[in-house]
Amino acid sequence: MAETSVFFLPDNIEVKIALGQTLVQAAAEAGITLRGACGGKGACGRCKVQVSSGNVTLTGTSKITPEEAATGWVLACQAVPEGDVTVFIPEASRLVEHRVLLEERQAGVLGILAEEAVEVAPLFHTEVLRLCAPTLADNTDDYSRLLWTLKRERGIEKVWTNRRVLKELPRVLRESDWHVAVDLARIGGWSEIQGIRPTGREAEDAYGLAVDIGTTTIAVELVELTAGKVAGTAGTYNRQAAFGDDIISRIIHAIETPGGQAELQKAVIETINGLITELLQFRKLSPQDVRAVVCAGNTTMIHLFLGLDPTYIRLEPYVPAANVPPPVKAAELGLQVHPEAWVHCMPAVSSYVGGDITAGVKVTGMNDAESLALFLDIGTNGEMVLGNRDWLMACACSAGPAFEGSGIACGMRAADGAIEAVRVFPGGFEVAYETIGNKKPLGICGSGLIDILSSLHGAGVIDRNGRFVKGNTSPRVREGREGSEFVVVWGNETGHGGDITVTQADIQNLMRAKAAVFAGLRTLMISVGLEIGAVERVFIAGGFGRFINIRDAIAIGMLPDIPLESYTYIGNSALKGARLALISRKAGEEIKAIAGRMTYVELSSGNRFMEEFISALFLPHTDMSLFPSVEGGSYGKVHSCH
Amino acid sequence: MAETSVFFLPDNIEVKIALGQTLVQAAAEAGITLRGACGGKGACGRCKVQVSSGNVTLTGTSKITPEEAATGWVLACQAVPEGDVTVFIPEASRLVEHRVLLEERQAGVLGILAEEAVEVAPLFHTEVLRLCAPTLADNTDDYSRLLWTLKRERGIEKVWTNRRVLKELPRVLRESDWHVAVDLARIGGWSEIQGIRPTGREAEDAYGLAVDIGTTTIAVELVELTAGKVAGTAGTYNRQAAFGDDIISRIIHAIETPGGQAELQKAVIETINGLITELLQFRKLSPQDVRAVVCAGNTTMIHLFLGLDPTYIRLEPYVPAANVPPPVKAAELGLQVHPEAWVHCMPAVSSYVGGDITAGVKVTGMNDAESLALFLDIGTNGEMVLGNRDWLMACACSAGPAFEGSGIACGMRAADGAIEAVRVFPGGFEVAYETIGNKKPLGICGSGLIDILSSLHGAGVIDRNGRFVKGNTSPRVREGREGSEFVVVWGNETGHGGDITVTQADIQNLMRAKAAVFAGLRTLMISVGLEIGAVERVFIAGGFGRFINIRDAIAIGMLPDIPLESYTYIGNSALKGARLALISRKAGEEIKAIAGRMTYVELSSGNRFMEEFISALFLPHTDMSLFPSVEGGSYGKVHSCH
Repeated sequence: MAETSVFFLPDNIEVKIALGQTLVQAAAEAGITLRGACGGKGACGRCKVQVSSGNVTLTGTSKITPEEAATGWVLACQAVPEGDVTVFIPEASRLVEHRVLLEERQAGVLGILAEEAVEVAPLFHTEVLRLCAPTLADNTDDYSRLLWTLKRERGIEKVWTNRRVLKELPRVLRESDWHVAVDLARIGGWSEIQGIRPTGREAEDAYGLAVDIGTTTIAVELVELTAGKVAGTAGTYNRQAAFGDDIISRIIHAIETPGGQAELQKAVIETINGLITELLQFRKLSPQDVRAVVCAGNTTMIHLFLGLDPTYIRLEPYVPAANVPPPVKAAELGLQVHPEAWVHCMPAVSSYVGGDITAGVKVTGMNDAESLALFLDIGTNGEMVLGNRDWLMACACSAGPAFEGSGIACGMRAADGAIEAVRVFPGGFEVAYETIGNKKPLGICGSGLIDILSSLHGAGVIDRNGRFVKGNTSPRVREGREGSEFVVVWGNETGHGGDITVTQADIQNLMRAKAAVFAGLRTLMISVGLEIGAVERVFIAGGFGRFINIRDAIAIGMLPDIPLESYTYIGNSALKGARLALISRKAGEEIKAIAGRMTYVELSSGNRFMEEFISALFLPHTDMSLFPSVEGGSYGKVHSCH
Repeated sequence: MAETSVFFLPDNIEVKIALGQTLVQAAAEAGITLRGACGGKGACGRCKVQVSSGNVTLTGTSKITPEEAATGWVLACQAVPEGDVTVFIPEASRLVEHRVLLEERQAGVLGILAEEAVEVAPLFHTEVLRLCAPTLADNTDDYSRLLWTLKRERGIEKVWTNRRVLKELPRVLRESDWHVAVDLARIGGWSEIQGIRPTGREAEDAYGLAVDIGTTTIAVELVELTAGKVAGTAGTYNRQAAFGDDIISRIIHAIETPGGQAELQKAVIETINGLITELLQFRKLSPQDVRAVVCAGNTTMIHLFLGLDPTYIRLEPYVPAANVPPPVKAAELGLQVHPEAWVHCMPAVSSYVGGDITAGVKVTGMNDAESLALFLDIGTNGEMVLGNRDWLMACACSAGPAFEGSGIACGMRAADGAIEAVRVFPGGFEVAYETIGNKKPLGICGSGLIDILSSLHGAGVIDRNGRFVKGNTSPRVREGREGSEFVVVWGNETGHGGDITVTQADIQNLMRAKAAVFAGLRTLMISVGLEIGAVERVFIAGGFGRFINIRDAIAIGMLPDIPLESYTYIGNSALKGARLALISRKAGEEIKAIAGRMTYVELSSGNRFMEEFISALFLPHTDMSLFPSVEGGSYGKVHSCH
């Protein structure tokens, strides 16, 4: 028998697979994408499933406890069916599409930035022109006549074109009686004539794409270029996630696996193409209608997207191949849009401050403001920019992916069933919580983790060092396999039946993450001789910021202790910035100018950051004067769950 | 029998052809290219051959006299062998390679322009750079580091590159220990990085090509770019000649024959590729070594070369698709050089004043001089430029191809056996002549035709109207098939055994041609309010000028009557100008500036030209005051044949 049958629950899907294939491959066959951060090496423990009947051969047992193993739990990537099997896939092991990334909602006290009105001057547009017909007294060549008309009638200079357009130019001009529609793509101050047609045969309105290429998720906005209006948005997980959770593991995959770089490029292009197809189908458009693409992403993502060598991003002194890669034609990348569409990537500043950040800063407007602002994007990586219209400084604070749920036993991304808000009552006996989508809890996402850290400290369960206080009598505090842990939700309430806990190791991870953020900020401030209190506005960007409770984030010493009304949530600012660059050439130029004048501070250079980091490994900080509103080192203001 | 055998004399080559194929196809099979201006339609009469044994079926009899037919003469394109045949091909029917085009020799009284020394700054070169290695304190991206070094160390700004170079950049920089050779192609004020290599692995010196794309002949110069030195030259007939002699017949072929335009493009590209192969083999180089190409040609030739639509060049108001087509990559055209090499075309001014002229003007330096100069290029077409550093006016004088031997019964191109200098003694009884290569005469080329016209007038054989004087008793004056004619060389002295004659119709053709040149010049002069005598220098360009006798050209009223020492022969100025643009970006910019400030005067617009033309249909002119040195309307100064 060369085949075996796998029946998946609760999906009720049966698939046939070849003998020797793993349950991950079987799930893929069934259309179910399992989570995985290690590329199927059994290292990350994300693809946990329960074999309810039949036998599997295990090629490894890591990340599975003896208790779990006894009840049939296996890692799908390590399990090869010996014959027909039935397998249960818990929600926590699935890659779930979460569209929420694309929307905005007011989280806690966060204000939302009003969208600035921009003058629409997109990267692709069509000019309808009436040329003077040539006479013997004015018999200049067709191409010069066209260029001259563009200049005189529309003020468009610095124009070039290709042989294809030149070839059809004489015929089209005469067939149209010198009344033509000219397709113009803008690139770096120049305009490329990409087509010329008789008027009346104009294509429908041209579209463009703004693309946010995140390490974890990718979002695409379809934009009606002439109107500058969003015509649709789609988002999904970056398929590169199968090769590693963070940029470092992706870079290692690119370098060390033969063909790895091509594999990663293919994964991201396919992810984007999938979203494009979805958007185009919905609007009944063809790939030919999409005439310009602007991508924003961190430096590594852009390297992998363009197929550039990411090797030296990871190695000291952390040098990218190109911060400002020249635009390329879509056809060269295999993007399913008009083959001649230019793909622009937002300019990066360094290996760890990418085009997502420069585009995001443009969205805040802080580059034009007098007041001192802080831009914070805590996603899979953590980047921040400090400054105003006179200066801009940036750093990457290596917060690690703890706030994305990675490296946390019961951590998960902000998806349905994630605990996003938590309140631990004094003593740690009682807990109130809220989940995304009001589903049974499956794990804890970043904002929930901040709440827990703050709340456990406020409730006296952990001390200022983040250590469990001895002698706590709450049944929720217990000794687990990896030391002390706190039970946030008992198994009878959860979606998967297991307890949701926070361990001592989790707390230390979170402490390091929050300390990195604050230490990065302090290092920036000190380098310009300013105190934390000088910050007048804080802009929180990215998926993480959506659910964050600012009070709690201040209480744990992660965010500066300034009035809550100084904080603004700006959503997916990378995507918004990319859209601005797509529909406004002025905005694009401003983003380039932002990148050009942003000073990158390399935190790993010198001792300052490390000193600040160590000082910040307390709740909220060794220097309590930095957090005047956080009373006596404990979180005094009880807040209600929202 | 599906095949028949054709034996060619005097070549002694036998070939087998399929039954039904013509003698033109048989000759091609034998490696002999026959002349032909009509594309095998039997209309031009150029491919005359003699069938000495065997029978042929004739598909037409035009252009063959009964006497010729009686002795076996046929048009090869109209003759299909019925069985084995033996065929004699006279020299006059062969397309002969004539390298003489590429050289220069002092013709008659013509001085030769000394080549200006130019600062070498070629369109492609390699910069060897030592970059500062990155440190934590200076960890900008590789690409910015490279751009910054190019700017600081070499003053090179406005640089772009492609993804291929960016992909290898990080590896090459580190493998070379930051000491690299960077290949730079220059295009329109910008520089494209086309490659980066560790130093020590530099390619041999890069080469470029200067190409003169003439209607009749094509010349290619291989240039060592860094030294700015010519490494080899090759020239041959433009294979497009098979589709017509002049640009109008080529345009008609392009428009009216399905696939004609592609056929013409293929023919010119193949001609150039043949010359490239020849040059590269001689120098033991590969196509990869050729990194830049500059072409100069008339507007139609450049259109056909680039595959642009030439339709409207021919139709009033004579509008080209593009005077200044953007550079294209060699691979796009199929040129057998480095695929990334940019192919630049010298800028044209109008349909009939092309890049060969603007490049030629740069060679004369008249655009920079205070004195008023005239640039004359009388080839298959006739173009002239009048002006100085303050202004430049150009026109195309539609001289027709008479001076190339076309439309003249015994006319031929300047090749071995062509009569290039003639003296007719008083009364027309005796004639002295000289041929190119001292071969037995086969026909008369342009300079010989001018001599004959001048000399027949001076000898009293023809009158001021160009008509044979009645009552001449010389046996050389006789009535031929097409009216009166003059026997220049008797058949017993010629290479083909036939008499070489000049007919009344030939003389009228030559009168029209010379009148067109002078009328063009007069029209230009009058439009700026100047008299002919104001011209201080005359530059004669092109193959025709090589052999011209200036005294005779003045005597017939073709060239202005100014001192002979004002005349300078500048050889193939199109090729020289292309070479200047190849090795000196400054020269290229100057040629663009020349094209930009050259005013084109359309002679077919208004009546002025036609009036001047009619006035010039005399020897030398109706207004004798324009030719003070030409005594009493007859050519008084007997000159010796050189």
